Amino acid sequence: MHKLVLIRHGESTWNLENRFTGWTDVDLTATGVDQAKNAGRLLKAEGYEFDVAYTSVLKRATRTLWHTLDEMDRTWLPVVHSWRLNERHYGALQGLNKADMAKQYGDAQVLVWRRSYDTPPPALEATDPRSERSDLRYARLDAGQVPLTECLKDTVARVLPFWNESIAPAIQGGKRVVVAAHGNSIRALVKYLDNISDDEIVGLNIPNGIPLVYELDENLKPIRHYYLGDAEAAAKAAAAVASQGKA
Amino acid sequence: MHKLVLIRHGESTWNLENRFTGWTDVDLTATGVDQAKNAGRLLKAEGYEFDVAYTSVLKRATRTLWHTLDEMDRTWLPVVHSWRLNERHYGALQGLNKADMAKQYGDAQVLVWRRSYDTPPPALEATDPRSERSDLRYARLDAGQVPLTECLKDTVARVLPFWNESIAPAIQGGKRVVVAAHGNSIRALVKYLDNISDDEIVGLNIPNGIPLVYELDENLKPIRHYYLGDAEAAAKAAAAVASQGKA
Repeated sequence: MHKLVLIRHGESTWNLENRFTGWTDVDLTATGVDQAKNAGRLLKAEGYEFDVAYTSVLKRATRTLWHTLDEMDRTWLPVVHSWRLNERHYGALQGLNKADMAKQYGDAQVLVWRRSYDTPPPALEATDPRSERSDLRYARLDAGQVPLTECLKDTVARVLPFWNESIAPAIQGGKRVVVAAHGNSIRALVKYLDNISDDEIVGLNIPNGIPLVYELDENLKPIRHYYLGDAEAAAKAAAAVASQGKA
Repeated sequence: MHKLVLIRHGESTWNLENRFTGWTDVDLTATGVDQAKNAGRLLKAEGYEFDVAYTSVLKRATRTLWHTLDEMDRTWLPVVHSWRLNERHYGALQGLNKADMAKQYGDAQVLVWRRSYDTPPPALEATDPRSERSDLRYARLDAGQVPLTECLKDTVARVLPFWNESIAPAIQGGKRVVVAAHGNSIRALVKYLDNISDDEIVGLNIPNGIPLVYELDENLKPIRHYYLGDAEAAAKAAAAVASQGKA
């Protein structure tokens, strides 16, 4: 039996400001740092050990991982960064306030933008200063690989190759893996692992900074999953995520 | 022409307490954190970019690298950890005060322990609680690879394979490299790069937290080297390192 630990980054400045973030590289708040440290303390208290850690190229996930590893006294573990673990790209909504958008376009439209499986938000123009196409960290990608918007289906499509080519072989090779990533890159993984339907994934929310443990069989099929720590607190935190897009 | 940047970690708690540290995994002081951040600011101001970073498995070097990358807004860069970049192992002296040892054994003996090229300090017993042989991070090494003491010659012998097999090929492949490491693992590299004699290396000291730039030709032979920032401050800091072992 394998254990895989998934951690959504701690609260970011734009989580706090209730803004669509996507690939914008905002940092953690002080609360987010505390959440990340707490994740590390929980993992340490439960005796978790890892052989390799994966994270995105966005600093809110990287820093969450660093704080987690620091609390575990495991700052020496190998860390692999991949843009494929980035948050879903939020297109032209990046930077805008979720509640403002709900007032302007209605709760239903914002829910579609936030949670529709296959309808992406309006795309950024490639020339928009918010576009990441000139960002050094993506310089080796084909321009077409740097999205201008994404629905969750698009995120699944670019997360899964990294799962299949890097994370899954590591787990099957006996490595104990932790992934510090984002609400929607984790939803993409969870959808795949638990074979959740396109309709049902809409209602699944991942709270910030709480380790989500998947127990997997030898074929990496989930046996069960659970949040570490206070289950009720995790459920409340997930419900709070769900309500962010309301006017 | 290639540029290689070497950074000795910022001041550690045991630098501050003037204790022999070696492989003991002590953290940075607040001053050390400031030095690390300043290294990042200097590199950013001078327009340095890196493709890959190397560090040891000791947290004072890892954290120095993290702060450096953070100040450069490059937290997404790949980081490779290797025990081969660790500080020289200080044997049975680890944890003891340098000035106390100088009072007890004389300045000359401490200088031999600190700077002799081929005379190691007294070895730790393998059963000494200070020994790192049961530390998880070294679990994959042969027991014989985890030292019980080292002279600089020993450090050179275990640093160079990592230089030859990992760092040098990366540089020759066009990657821009930063190495955040330790006084003696950097002295080992510098001795090799500049072909410094066993006698002359005794007088070479590396200050904490100041980027040391090596310009290398296509065969990785040094063209010149220099510290970034205030040259006089770097010289003073190196002189302070040299005087640490005096009663």
